[in-house]
Amino acid sequence: MEDNKRMTKLADLATPALVIERGRLVANLERMKARARALGVRLRPHMKIAKTAEIAELAVEEKGRGIAVQTLAEAEFFAQAGYSDITICAGMIPSKLDRAARLADAGVTVITDSPDVAQAIAAHGDRFEVLVEIDCGGHRAGIFPESTEVIEIAKILDGAPRATFAGVLTNAAHCYQGRTRAEFEAIAEQERGAVVDAAERISGAGISCPVVSVGSTATAVTAKHLDGATETRPGLYVFNDLFRAGVGLCAPDDIALSLLSRVIGHYRSDNRLLIDAGVTSLSLDRGTERIEGGDQGFGVVLDEDLRPIAPGLKVARLHTEHAWVAADEPLPFDSLPIGTMVRILPNHANNTATMHRHYDVVDGTSDVIARWSRQGGW
Amino acid sequence: MEDNKRMTKLADLATPALVIERGRLVANLERMKARARALGVRLRPHMKIAKTAEIAELAVEEKGRGIAVQTLAEAEFFAQAGYSDITICAGMIPSKLDRAARLADAGVTVITDSPDVAQAIAAHGDRFEVLVEIDCGGHRAGIFPESTEVIEIAKILDGAPRATFAGVLTNAAHCYQGRTRAEFEAIAEQERGAVVDAAERISGAGISCPVVSVGSTATAVTAKHLDGATETRPGLYVFNDLFRAGVGLCAPDDIALSLLSRVIGHYRSDNRLLIDAGVTSLSLDRGTERIEGGDQGFGVVLDEDLRPIAPGLKVARLHTEHAWVAADEPLPFDSLPIGTMVRILPNHANNTATMHRHYDVVDGTSDVIARWSRQGGW
Repeated sequence: MEDNKRMTKLADLATPALVIERGRLVANLERMKARARALGVRLRPHMKIAKTAEIAELAVEEKGRGIAVQTLAEAEFFAQAGYSDITICAGMIPSKLDRAARLADAGVTVITDSPDVAQAIAAHGDRFEVLVEIDCGGHRAGIFPESTEVIEIAKILDGAPRATFAGVLTNAAHCYQGRTRAEFEAIAEQERGAVVDAAERISGAGISCPVVSVGSTATAVTAKHLDGATETRPGLYVFNDLFRAGVGLCAPDDIALSLLSRVIGHYRSDNRLLIDAGVTSLSLDRGTERIEGGDQGFGVVLDEDLRPIAPGLKVARLHTEHAWVAADEPLPFDSLPIGTMVRILPNHANNTATMHRHYDVVDGTSDVIARWSRQGGW
Repeated sequence: MEDNKRMTKLADLATPALVIERGRLVANLERMKARARALGVRLRPHMKIAKTAEIAELAVEEKGRGIAVQTLAEAEFFAQAGYSDITICAGMIPSKLDRAARLADAGVTVITDSPDVAQAIAAHGDRFEVLVEIDCGGHRAGIFPESTEVIEIAKILDGAPRATFAGVLTNAAHCYQGRTRAEFEAIAEQERGAVVDAAERISGAGISCPVVSVGSTATAVTAKHLDGATETRPGLYVFNDLFRAGVGLCAPDDIALSLLSRVIGHYRSDNRLLIDAGVTSLSLDRGTERIEGGDQGFGVVLDEDLRPIAPGLKVARLHTEHAWVAADEPLPFDSLPIGTMVRILPNHANNTATMHRHYDVVDGTSDVIARWSRQGGW
């Protein structure tokens, strides 16, 4: 990628390799910025999927500020990369407070749904901004907006000398149950309603509740309005994937992530190809199986320029480092010789990305214009 | 882990963390060495799962020699670590030959099931030892032992000035279909029979066939004999897992790998706990679902000393960085306060290990005696 060298091409990459189409990525980021503006909320991009400084830089509304992460390791990575105003969106526990406190200069906000943890935060020697996590129906984490603990936690933190009670946060973890626009709109309204209800109860108890945070790609795309919410935290929109395309949350051409792989075997009697990708690079995700009539196996197989090769060409079976590629009709073996590069669109961008330590970036051609490292670990 | 510091404890680890019980690991390795001796074959440990120099060192029969790997990156890693006599067990393709050739000093053997690839190997400027890959019924890769291509490939390589035809190799990829001892014995016999048949046909054609390689943990454990085979390449035996325990290939106490996680939420109305592990650390594997009456969810949850906590305690639902822990009976919430450490036995050790970049090693206590790095990438 240096000027005095030949440009790296897709064909130069060891396979499997995780590839980003930069043009699609940037379009996804700009579309969500416009969407947040239209909804009248702040966009706080969730970096648990991208885990990459280069994408955060393109995604944020204000340089170096305002992201969500899921783990302490991600918070540390982005703080190191110069980010501040970072919300860590998994329930804090007392034994992690010292590590979180070391990020205080970056302005880290933590969340909890437990009065016991709120007490531990209040008693800790360092300053924390804290949100209460609300369960809006997804039953991943959080307490119900009507529960007594909502006020109890807000009071504990509001009364603490160093902690700051900052507001409420929720995530529609049940958005994967949606299939139609109407269903997603209803889930988005549940998400908004739950957290706005909680915020109103807290305000009603005389405690200031400045942050009212919702967020998932599905609800950010479909919400009719976000009245009462102050921010949204979508994450998957940066890449999109076959599941989201299958349920109408994006167009197939909005999928910015693909796995580059090579044909390593021909099995004409089975009408299948073998490729050098498997569980370790593609993930076991079968998310599109749950879309009626929309099952895409372990991923849709396209050519190296993301054009269709044959109708219904999919990853049909997965081994550790091998996968079967099969189709509805006889395969064009002669135009897919051993060594041919293919690109696989993933069912779930998050689950495929998590198998990788870097992205290779292209922009509409076979030139690899950058390699972006992906933070891992906890 | 330095002498002048306090010993690192499990409680000091960031969670989730992948933990090896060294005593169990070593027992698994010794058991398989004895098993290979009893079967009269060489043990060539498959390092595609462990991907760790420290485990290879404990697993090999002869220091620094004789392992199997699945990818070029693994071959390079182990060559760098001083290993020679490395078999790369995924079909070679022409565009990877230059990279493989750079490992010639380490004595790398490649495999193919394609006459076209055999021609490319024969025409390449570097020396390669080559095995023909046989399909023994698993239909992952390979050609059938009775196919004309077996002899064709052997002849191409035998007649090449620089390549060496080294023999035949197979893997019973269908061993996951087995449930009973009798079924595994039958699969092991299929695996052995296929590759011995191919070797006999090649010998009958006047071509020397010194290597007759079989291998998987299931077949190595259950084969009645391996007459005619020269080596076995099991891999999962180093760790074992719930699937293997569920079908009788190991005892539950032989599982050497577990995921350390912490309780981060209590949801009494749902009778569930939330822990700080998810898809990114545990994997989506649901392998035990396929064992009648043996479904272990996404993994069995034990205490930090690998002792049972409550009957049927399992990972019941998985999110990206969260998981539900549920049980058949009311959970003992009060003895599992937020922050409590748990250890999860995985359904499939390979699929869980692949989510991690290192192992933390303990040996029957909570002292972390080593951190072993795990090679990744391709």
